[in-house]
Formats: sequence, structure tokens, C-alpha cells
Amino acid sequence: MKSDMIDIQNQKGINDIDIDKVGVKGIRYPIVVLDKENGTQHTIASINLYVDLPHKFKGTHMSRFVEILNEYRMEIKIKNFDTILDKMKDLLNAKSAHIEFDFPYFIKKKAPISGEEGLMEYKCRYVGYSGEKKEFIVGIKVPITTLCPCSKEISEFGAHNQRSHVNVRLLSKKFFWIEDIIAIVEGSGSADLYSLLKRSDEKYLTEKAYDNPMFVEDVVREVSRRLIELDIFEWFLVESENIESIHNHNVYALIEWGKRPENIII
Amino acid sequence: MKSDMIDIQNQKGINDIDIDKVGVKGIRYPIVVLDKENGTQHTIASINLYVDLPHKFKGTHMSRFVEILNEYRMEIKIKNFDTILDKMKDLLNAKSAHIEFDFPYFIKKKAPISGEEGLMEYKCRYVGYSGEKKEFIVGIKVPITTLCPCSKEISEFGAHNQRSHVNVRLLSKKFFWIEDIIAIVEGSGSADLYSLLKRSDEKYLTEKAYDNPMFVEDVVREVSRRLIELDIFEWFLVESENIESIHNHNVYALIEWGKRPENIII
Amino acid sequence: MKSDMIDIQNQKGINDIDIDKVGVKGIRYPIVVLDKENGTQHTIASINLYVDLPHKFKGTHMSRFVEILNEYRMEIKIKNFDTILDKMKDLLNAKSAHIEFDFPYFIKKKAPISGEEGLMEYKCRYVGYSGEKKEFIVGIKVPITTLCPCSKEISEFGAHNQRSHVNVRLLSKKFFWIEDIIAIVEGSGSADLYSLLKRSDEKYLTEKAYDNPMFVEDVVREVSRRLIELDIFEWFLVESENIESIHNHNVYALIEWGKRPENIII
Amino acid sequence: MKSDMIDIQNQKGINDIDIDKVGVKGIRYPIVVLDKENGTQHTIASINLYVDLPHKFKGTHMSRFVEILNEYRMEIKIKNFDTILDKMKDLLNAKSAHIEFDFPYFIKKKAPISGEEGLMEYKCRYVGYSGEKKEFIVGIKVPITTLCPCSKEISEFGAHNQRSHVNVRLLSKKFFWIEDIIAIVEGSGSADLYSLLKRSDEKYLTEKAYDNPMFVEDVVREVSRRLIELDIFEWFLVESENIESIHNHNVYALIEWGKRPENIII
Repeated sequence: MKSDMIDIQNQKGINDIDIDKVGVKGIRYPIVVLDKENGTQHTIASINLYVDLPHKFKGTHMSRFVEILNEYRMEIKIKNFDTILDKMKDLLNAKSAHIEFDFPYFIKKKAPISGEEGLMEYKCRYVGYSGEKKEFIVGIKVPITTLCPCSKEISEFGAHNQRSHVNVRLLSKKFFWIEDIIAIVEGSGSADLYSLLKRSDEKYLTEKAYDNPMFVEDVVREVSRRLIELDIFEWFLVESENIESIHNHNVYALIEWGKRPENIII
Repeated sequence: MKSDMIDIQNQKGINDIDIDKVGVKGIRYPIVVLDKENGTQHTIASINLYVDLPHKFKGTHMSRFVEILNEYRMEIKIKNFDTILDKMKDLLNAKSAHIEFDFPYFIKKKAPISGEEGLMEYKCRYVGYSGEKKEFIVGIKVPITTLCPCSKEISEFGAHNQRSHVNVRLLSKKFFWIEDIIAIVEGSGSADLYSLLKRSDEKYLTEKAYDNPMFVEDVVREVSRRLIELDIFEWFLVESENIESIHNHNVYALIEWGKRPENIII
Repeated sequence: MKSDMIDIQNQKGINDIDIDKVGVKGIRYPIVVLDKENGTQHTIASINLYVDLPHKFKGTHMSRFVEILNEYRMEIKIKNFDTILDKMKDLLNAKSAHIEFDFPYFIKKKAPISGEEGLMEYKCRYVGYSGEKKEFIVGIKVPITTLCPCSKEISEFGAHNQRSHVNVRLLSKKFFWIEDIIAIVEGSGSADLYSLLKRSDEKYLTEKAYDNPMFVEDVVREVSRRLIELDIFEWFLVESENIESIHNHNVYALIEWGKRPENIII
Repeated sequence: MKSDMIDIQNQKGINDIDIDKVGVKGIRYPIVVLDKENGTQHTIASINLYVDLPHKFKGTHMSRFVEILNEYRMEIKIKNFDTILDKMKDLLNAKSAHIEFDFPYFIKKKAPISGEEGLMEYKCRYVGYSGEKKEFIVGIKVPITTLCPCSKEISEFGAHNQRSHVNVRLLSKKFFWIEDIIAIVEGSGSADLYSLLKRSDEKYLTEKAYDNPMFVEDVVREVSRRLIELDIFEWFLVESENIESIHNHNVYALIEWGKRPENIII
């Protein structure tokens, strides 16, 4: 029966406008990604897959995106992006393709004094584009502690502090480990976060944060400085957002460095 | 034409099961609520309106819920709940009715030292039920600061602190002002939050929090103690949740007091 | 150094109010759950772990919750709930304990005509309580298609239809498979959903939905009828919510059956 | 006391990196915006306010953002953006400033046959930048109905349809009414949505959608064609996302037209 059906997606476009992106959005799938310590890691991603559609075609073939996902979901890694993007362009007769994967990534982390172990979650994002040019962006969100230098300076004792979320997005042509970027960010706040802490760790982290006050401005500068030193990025963006403990709103800072990608909407 | 249409909702139920709630969910509407200082306040609510449906009816008449909302949206207050619920039961031939309004509520608040004014947002919730019995619940979320007593005790200097969200849900037969409950909660943390603070305020609040360390457990106990003292509630629930500055998860405590409402799902 | 620290959590409570629940909320952890087809499944959960705290104790020991999670995360199943809850009560000197796991669960599903395979995500929730009594609830969210009987009846051609989310929560003393409940719900809508469909499948599902119109009321009644027939539940709740295609709000129905659990807030 | 405090934000930067944006994020405030029919409309916004910070300054003065918000919140309109942005640059000694307002906007809408009235919510976004250049973007999200042309074509009867969200972002130097853009989008789907419909309206809309099938691709093309015809935009972006009734994921299309703004992250 299938062969008799009219393929309405292949009809001539009623309209002479090219479409930049068309595809599936928000599909949730278990995937396997690279893990520095364990080789691979099972996780669950929210996925967007798009291709361009020239004005002469009415519609794209949505089911093919899921077929490609079925084929590649067990080995999602930056090295494979070219292959996946090429497959998308090939199967969908497109000149450009976009892939976006958002997924949690877990790393075992030892408490600083007690050495107790717990798992920490970091939200990651892979974005790939292949058209006339190629662009790959890796995004990582890292929670840290920030302690306000102003509050410390003006107060007789104490200083307000809070959880802060640092978001980095990186465009590099060289391979790098997510773990190494996380280490850079966790070293750029007043202190870092853990899932499992004993009292000795809590004492250490409280004092460390007090000894190391940082504005949201300081954090994005320090992360940027260290990323620049790595000397492997063509572009990056660093955001930091404090969940202020004295306000019901957040404070925020952003540094963008290098030439912004042209095709990926960052 | 309308009169010729078959009224399929009035057909006999295909099934002999009564429905507890049926209606519209997540409709967003501008409403007007009571304001202690200014008389009334314009806000925007997410609204659910439900009635029961006996097994002999196939479906309810969804459009009537929106008609009732159109009629009453300019005077949403606890005193009106009975009228609205009765109207719903009447118009929809029902024996019971539920209304749920979630809306932000703003109060002008002066900074503690500078006296500078800003607006603070508090998320509120009105839930009303009318069947054989009547139940009305008011919910209010209040952000506060909590400073960890343990961290203060064990550390040479400093103490981790964070924004915490206190959620109270109250069943009372007497009228009370949202403003008065907010004052109780804001007085039950290590310090309270403001939208506009100058340096003198920041110093004051930092030191106040350090002088007044509270676990999440202390907060729910203190709020509960003060609510019990008010002596107007038949039931309440107090939750507090710390956005921990040393963890990437929250800590939480809950106290429930009195006899839980039977008809409202709290 | 740790042994010298004052254990401030064990100090006498400043307040004579018992706390119903205290613990960690929103911790994200990779876990392993039972899978009918494959034995086990790796997934990622948002987890809450609570115990009660008598009025004589000031605070609980938050780190122990994460230690318990570390110990049991590789075998999260209903059969283990008793063990985990007992361990919590034991380690934290508590009389009652609560556990809540929310996690996505994936099942391979074949398209109805083409037989093409894709993975479908179902959001699941395990809630367990152990105090003087024991209560276990399993929650499952299943997306389906609903096609409006009224729209079909009154229109010359076509009928509005939409994605609908059915949420069931079940209290049973007998073991059951999540897969079997999903099958019941997917058989109770106008049609069911797939991640991968070819044109022949789309034709089949479009016609199936048109032949099988269902109000949101019909769906909760049909699911309830089938759950009652299974004859293994002490209590259940069935909700259905249509993402209406002709409205910007949803329509909703709920049936609750049996005696509502007393300790778990459903 | 305040005058004695060390102004730590004005200390020399420890780091020679300029910050692109620093300020307050996610502050919620009641505001007043222009309304084509009623003159003005009260609504509630989530607001971000940022300025740049040269490398020679350590920090910005966060409280001044809220002071500016207090001053201008009662007349938020595109014509005022220049004034607000200039005030921000002036008060904060900055060379560039960003403002972002996200708010719901309500319009009274009559059902197509019965003429019954209800309020429809549209999520809007104002973004303004003033530095060496100026950029203003207006964003509007409009829900519509889409009915699948393929499903209609291949099926004996019926066709799957769903709620779809169209998001437009517009850069124009001429003034335009939000209402007029909404009318364009609502005229570009298979049918449009209402909060209050009677049976005669439901019949009309069901048949209209069936007579007017549109892929997500068709929608973004039709909206784009009409926006180009208006001939007042320097740049726009049109997205459409179907909440597919036969899938648990969405389908999506995007058209970008004109030269993308350089300073605003779209």
C-alpha cells in the first residue's frame, strides 16, 4: 500500500522561500557518550535534528531523522558528528544539517577532606552544523559557590554566598575532555559543589569560600582567562548566574571571545 | 444552526464510572485580587476549573467554565469563592466544583536601613472546593535567606548560606491577609530578601543572617509555631527548601498540622 | 579533626514540634531499574529522600541520604523499597521514611503497519513510605492521541484531535510490570503514539483515531475500567489532559478509586 | 555609615578582560505596555538588564538597575527603549546596555461564528541594545492549529492535527502593533485558537482546518511571505513547532531573513 501513496512532501513548493532548518525537536532518547574515566557513559538526551529545505520542495521526510538516531545513538561523540551530519544531508537530500543534543553527564567526585565519593551532574550540550562550513559547539553547565566580596568587606562577620551556575559554550577544532573544562570552571569560583560532604568537608569549603570571595564578574573573567590560556578555542562564551541569597532575582555576567559562529544560533 | 446540532455531551454515559473532576486546565487570564495596601491588584493567573460528572453523563460543557471566568475575573477573592463555585455547580449541573488559581502577587518593600523601595514577588495559590463540604486553601511561596548553623559552628570564619523557598498552604475559616502570612515567614528565616538594596542594607542583612543561623528544620518549626499561635487555622502545611550553596541538590523539610482536607488534593 | 566537631544536629530541639519529612530534594542520579524485556535499564532519576524528625532533635544528617543512594542506586525496584526505607530509618534514627524517584523509562515500540522500531519515553515515578504502615505508589505518564467526538459529530469532515497525557498513580500490593499498565493506557485513547512512523502507519493511525473518537472523560473512564478489571489495586488515580488543538488551554479529567493513601501526599 | 564603606566595585579590575554584559537577570516586575485597543495594558514581566564593564572596573552597581526599573516600569514601550538604555549607560558609566522583557500580553478575541468573547494570551519579548549601534527586537509567540496535508491525503477520512506554536522575532525601524503581527500569524495556519468556543465555532474551525492543511514548513513560509510583504523589517526569524498528535516529539521549521543583529544574541 505504501508504494501507492502520493508522496506529498516531494511536491513542488507552493512558495519560493528556502527553509533554514526543518526537522524533529525535543525527541528524548537514551544515548551513549564518551567518558574520560570509564570509556563510555549511558545518558538520556533531548535531541533536535534539522536539515535545510530548498524552496522547490514542499516538505521534508521526518521519519528519516529518527532512523538516523536509531543508527547512531550508541556512539554520540564529537568525532562522529561529521558522519551523522553527512548521513542526514545524504538521506534527506539537503545541503546543510544541524544536530543538537542536551544531556546530563555524571562524574564521580571525592569530597575534599573526607574523600567520600558521590556523583555530580553536569548538563551538557553538543551542537553540530555542516553546510558549506562546519561548526561544532560544546556547552557545559557547572554549578559553583560564589561568596560576595562586597558583603565580606563591609560586614563585621559573615558574607552572603550562593549557588551559581556557570555556562560555557566552546568552539574548538581540537579534541578536549568535558572533564577538563569542568575542572577549570570549578577552580574559578569561591568554592565548588559536591553531592556528598561530611562535616570536615563542610568546614573546609566554608572557609575556602570565605577566603576566596568572587563577584559574578570575577568568575567569568577567571574562566575566560583560563580558557584563553588553553589556546585551543576559536570562540567561546562564558556566562555566570548567581542565585542571590539576599535577592529574589539573579545577577549575571557574560564574556564572549573570538568570532561568533555564523550558522549555529548560539 | 447551533440548535440543530446533536448535543453529544448530554448523551448517556457509555460507562458507569463517576468522574471526580473534569474541566479546563492551565488557562491563563488577567485577574484582579485584593491588596491590603492598595485595595486591589492586577495580576495574571494560571487557572483550573473543574466539576464532577456523574456516570450517567458522557461529557461536560467546557465553554461554560470560560464564561464563568469572564464573569468573575475582576474580583477574585476568598469571599467570592462560594459564589463562583455555586455558579459552576449551577451552570454545569454538578454536585461539586473545584477552582485553582496560581498567580504572582507583588508587595512594595523597603530596604531595612536605606529605606529604598522595591517590589517583591510572592507566588500565591487559591484553591476552593464546594461539594457536600467546603474547603478553601491559600498557598504562598516566600523566599528567605538561611545560614547554616553547623557551617557557622565548625568554621573559623564565614558560614554557607543560600536562598530558600518557604511554601505554606493554609486552611482557615477566618479571613486573613496574605501580607500578614508573608511577614511571619520573612521573620522566620536567617534574614529576608529584597529587590533593591544599598550597601548599608547588604551589611545589615549579612550580619543579621550570621547572627541568626537556621537549618531548614528550624525554619519550618518557627513558621509552624507562629501559625499555631495565630489560632485561626484548621490545617496547614509548611515546606522549606534550601538551594544549597555547597551542594547541587536542595535540602527540604515539611510540617503538616491539623486534619488534612479530604477533597482537595494538597 | 572531625571527631572534635560539635554535632550541632544532635542538640536538643529548640522547639517542640515534630517534623514530618526532612531530607534531600531534587538530587539527580543515574539509577538502574527493572525492564520486562531486557532485565534492567539504565536511566537518570530526580530523587527525594526524607525521614521524620522528632521534636527532641534539632536536625537530621543530610549526608547519610546520599550514602544510602550510593549503595542502592544500581538496583532500584519496588521489591527493594522496604530494604531502602528500613536502611534510612535505621541510619537516621527515624520512625518513618519516604523515597521518591522520578525517571524516564524507554520501551522499544513497533509501528503498527510498517513494523519499524523506535524508542518511546514514559515518565515514571516511584514513591515509597514506611512508618507504622507501608505505602508504595507507582506513577506512569503515557501520551496518547484523542479525537473529539463532538467535533467529529458536528462537522462535515475532519475532527480536531491532539496529543493527550494520561497520568496514572497506582497503589498495589501485587507486583506488576510498568509495560502492562502502559499497554492498558495506550489501548484506551483514540490512537497511540510512536517515535518512528512511515506513511502506511500514519494512514492507519489517522483512520484509527477518526474511527475511535474519545473525550478526555471517556479516556479516564476506560483506563479506570481496565484497571479495576485487573483486580490488583487498592487505590488508583487516573488523569488525562488534552493539549487542545483549538484552544490555548488544556481540558482535563480525573478519576480516583479506592481509599486514598494517608501518608504519601499523592 | 554608608559613606565610610569601601566601594569595592570601583577597585581596579584584577583581570584585563572586558565584560560584555553584567547585571540583573530574572527579576519579576509588574509593568505597563502599550495596547492597541485600550491604550495601555498591565502585565508582569521577567526582566534582564545588563551593561558592559570595561576591564579596568572590578564590578558593576547592581542596585541601580532596579532603580531604573522602578522609574520606567509604568511605560515600557519601544519608543522608550532609547531613553531607558541611555539612562542605564549614564547611571552605570557604561558604553553599551541591554534590556530584555518577557511578558504575557492579552487580547480580546471573538469566536468566529457565535461572536462570544474571550481573552487570548500571547507571550511577548522586547529586547533592546544600545552601544555603538542600536538594535531592537520584538518577539511574539502565537499558538495556531496545523492539520497535516500528508495525513489528509493518504487517509480515507480524518487527518491528524495539533496545536502549534509560531515564534516570530522582528527587527524593524518602523513602529508596528503586536496585534497586527498576531493577525498575520493566525491567518497563516490551518486555523486559529480561541479561549471561548461554542459548538457552531467548533464546527467551523474543524472544517476550516481540514480545508486548509499545512505542514510546519508551509506555516513558516506563509508567515515569512506576509512579513516580507509588510516591507518594514530589516531582519526576522520565524519558527513553528507542532505538538504532534501522533508522535511524542515535535516537528519544527525555521526561516531567518535579512541580516542577523550583531549585538543581540537572538
